[in-house]
Amino acid sequence: MMFTIPLNTKSKTPLYDQIYTYIKNEIRNGTIAYQAKLPSTRSLATYLQVSRNTVDMAYSQLVSEGYIESKAKSGYYVCQIEEMLAVPKHTTIRQNPQQTLKPSYTYDFSPFTIDIHHFPYNTWRKLSKECLNNSNNDLFLLGPKQGDISLRESIQKYLHESRGVQCDKDQIIVGAGADYLLQLLAQLLSSMSESCKIAMENPTYTQAYRIFSGLGVATCCIPLDNSGIRIGSLNISGANIAYVTPSHQYPLGIIMPIKRRQALLQWANETNDRYIIEDDHDSEFRYKGKPIPALQGLDHNGKVIYMGTFSRAIAPAIRVGYLVLPPAILNLYNSRYSYYTSTVSRIDQSILATFISDGYFERHLNKMRKHYKAKHDILIQALKIFKNKISIQGEHAGLHLVVNFHLPITEEELIEKAAHSSIKLYGLKKFFISFDNRKNYEPTILLGYANLTEDEIITGIEQLYKTCIF
Amino acid sequence: MMFTIPLNTKSKTPLYDQIYTYIKNEIRNGTIAYQAKLPSTRSLATYLQVSRNTVDMAYSQLVSEGYIESKAKSGYYVCQIEEMLAVPKHTTIRQNPQQTLKPSYTYDFSPFTIDIHHFPYNTWRKLSKECLNNSNNDLFLLGPKQGDISLRESIQKYLHESRGVQCDKDQIIVGAGADYLLQLLAQLLSSMSESCKIAMENPTYTQAYRIFSGLGVATCCIPLDNSGIRIGSLNISGANIAYVTPSHQYPLGIIMPIKRRQALLQWANETNDRYIIEDDHDSEFRYKGKPIPALQGLDHNGKVIYMGTFSRAIAPAIRVGYLVLPPAILNLYNSRYSYYTSTVSRIDQSILATFISDGYFERHLNKMRKHYKAKHDILIQALKIFKNKISIQGEHAGLHLVVNFHLPITEEELIEKAAHSSIKLYGLKKFFISFDNRKNYEPTILLGYANLTEDEIITGIEQLYKTCIF
Repeated sequence: MMFTIPLNTKSKTPLYDQIYTYIKNEIRNGTIAYQAKLPSTRSLATYLQVSRNTVDMAYSQLVSEGYIESKAKSGYYVCQIEEMLAVPKHTTIRQNPQQTLKPSYTYDFSPFTIDIHHFPYNTWRKLSKECLNNSNNDLFLLGPKQGDISLRESIQKYLHESRGVQCDKDQIIVGAGADYLLQLLAQLLSSMSESCKIAMENPTYTQAYRIFSGLGVATCCIPLDNSGIRIGSLNISGANIAYVTPSHQYPLGIIMPIKRRQALLQWANETNDRYIIEDDHDSEFRYKGKPIPALQGLDHNGKVIYMGTFSRAIAPAIRVGYLVLPPAILNLYNSRYSYYTSTVSRIDQSILATFISDGYFERHLNKMRKHYKAKHDILIQALKIFKNKISIQGEHAGLHLVVNFHLPITEEELIEKAAHSSIKLYGLKKFFISFDNRKNYEPTILLGYANLTEDEIITGIEQLYKTCIF
Repeated sequence: MMFTIPLNTKSKTPLYDQIYTYIKNEIRNGTIAYQAKLPSTRSLATYLQVSRNTVDMAYSQLVSEGYIESKAKSGYYVCQIEEMLAVPKHTTIRQNPQQTLKPSYTYDFSPFTIDIHHFPYNTWRKLSKECLNNSNNDLFLLGPKQGDISLRESIQKYLHESRGVQCDKDQIIVGAGADYLLQLLAQLLSSMSESCKIAMENPTYTQAYRIFSGLGVATCCIPLDNSGIRIGSLNISGANIAYVTPSHQYPLGIIMPIKRRQALLQWANETNDRYIIEDDHDSEFRYKGKPIPALQGLDHNGKVIYMGTFSRAIAPAIRVGYLVLPPAILNLYNSRYSYYTSTVSRIDQSILATFISDGYFERHLNKMRKHYKAKHDILIQALKIFKNKISIQGEHAGLHLVVNFHLPITEEELIEKAAHSSIKLYGLKKFFISFDNRKNYEPTILLGYANLTEDEIITGIEQLYKTCIF
């Protein structure tokens, strides 16, 4: 047997590769049968007028992939392989349903966005350049699983000074965003007790609900009153974990007063397996008075799991958040999941650590607070056009207002009407885990203002007024 | 009642804050009782000789936090709060067991590391600067959950050209490293069927085993022969998922021949719920002939879940990996977990996309392949000193060799002995999920060479020889 292989010496594909591909295809087609002996490398080289080394390389690749085998003192033989389907040129792949293109609105009052025009580009660029200039080679190997020490120290200091959080850097776990950290928490808490059940505020950050329940953790929802989660309902819910947003309830903006905080801590202290998850999602932005201190700072019994992210304070795209675990949960993490490697790039960790420790973060927050306050005040002012047709909740903090419309239409109708005027509104109903149709429920809209200009806020609200009232 | 508050006008703490803190502490201490009426803002302002606005701010913060309440036309009253424990200055926190400081060795033959001295600093710095200069504001908002389109396109093209992977960008999910992606896979596969069971090669990448079993997924381990995972054992294992490393078995370096690949695909084709996870962990580094094509490219029935990372090809610290899901698993992901946001910073995604699409990645790989090949060859050469006292497996690829020592000592003794000469060795035993003490087991060491210099390799092996033989 000899192969007449059409070799192209001008091709970019090396000659050995052309020989390899030809023979491989002959074997896969069945043209050369199982156990057939291949020509010796020397004879094939002579026949094809190529160097013997070229044929050697082709054969050795075929051996590596198992198409042929070499028998000592005998030569190369074709291995037995199943008949292969011809490889279709383009495997048909069922298309993923296209990510729905959102119709673009002139005025999008999204409560989920931030003002990205004020991302600290120059600082970030400078810090990332410095970080890569330092040529700290270790930065490119795996770092500590809980996050780099310098970053955890920066976060610890920031949380202590700005939020009254009492913790050691070893209690902090840095991770790739709130979703990842919620997944990790769900794993931790359900490994702690078989009967783990998480009570959630209703309405709440429904993404947390989806993550918990998607991982098979039992959940239940607890109604709110003016002070936040109702302790009575919590008591009879059978839950051992409470997921709450005490500094600024999401999405309603309720500040949980000290008395309710104490009652909640009291609830957690009653049994060993009870814990509180404090999601301090937008505590950085309060426009009146001092920040509301974190619940974690009131806790003396290691009952509060504190979490936060830099998504709102810097940008969602940087994907960094943190957990502060109380000792018992930290021990559980260390014994059960200590093998998880960090999910955040060390370069990013290093940039962020310097951003915080060198005071850029505080200056950035002060700047953003001023920007957001201006927009907040303009929105409140603009809404005066509605007079007593609306009432406002959750003001003076966060990046959205909650507005009740005293109008004889449903929330859906209001959103639909606004959409016709190119105004995108976000209704409160979507933030309920379970929504029982109450008699007195009025259309309620979350008006986000972070990523609109002051002009857009004013004309957007005027437009909305015309749409709603006429 | 009037408060004699020692105000310090030279303090950095604003006056309103001093008033707020004083009254809050009085309430928390119980000095001012429940229902006590506070002085009016006007009278307190006059008394303290501060502006009324200052007292207003202090009261309003106390109201926000729930310490006092305002009654219409009457004034401010202290709310009922539980007696609070005094906040200890330093809450005692049980220290996290310190991350054990590894003794530092002169020669560390770690198979887990890479050559970090060749990280493409200049390119990375240039690309990150360009990325931040482009001021593409959208880059700071949340991107597509599966990863940015440009990055997925770059990965798709790279995998197609270099690994023979057949897929569409919509099948790719970018995530924060292999661990995260393995967690996601474990969730997907166990939500697919209650009786999900993952068969793993033994020895294997034990981190994957820890992650799967840590999430409660059933696993079993399957012995290997010279062609890789034994299909007979797989057939009777009751597993419906096989986690394999066909291009370069981890850690033994076996290349799964075409016949075994077909048999494995055949196994998967037998029932609907069977799938193969192909972890293509270090396919970039092959020093002889062409890369071994991925198993995924042979699969015509959507049975292979392909995964890879940039940890070895670029650096572990960048924390980016990818899954390529076959259509059925992709549909499951879309219906079950479509709410998970991306875990990778969009800035990093953008840098990486350009790094690949502009040809830097290919050049970097070519450079690294040359570096690693040189180290690989030097290690093989250096090991000749051992003559027939050792045999070598898994050469010509990856970043480590597997070396059997034909010496009358145990693996543990060999490692211990080497440690005394400041040589860190990594034994094969640790890579077994279950290790049955075989009669003929010889001490087997994974010799990693990536992060040692050529001189260190030579003197390290000489040192090892002296240690072992004398």
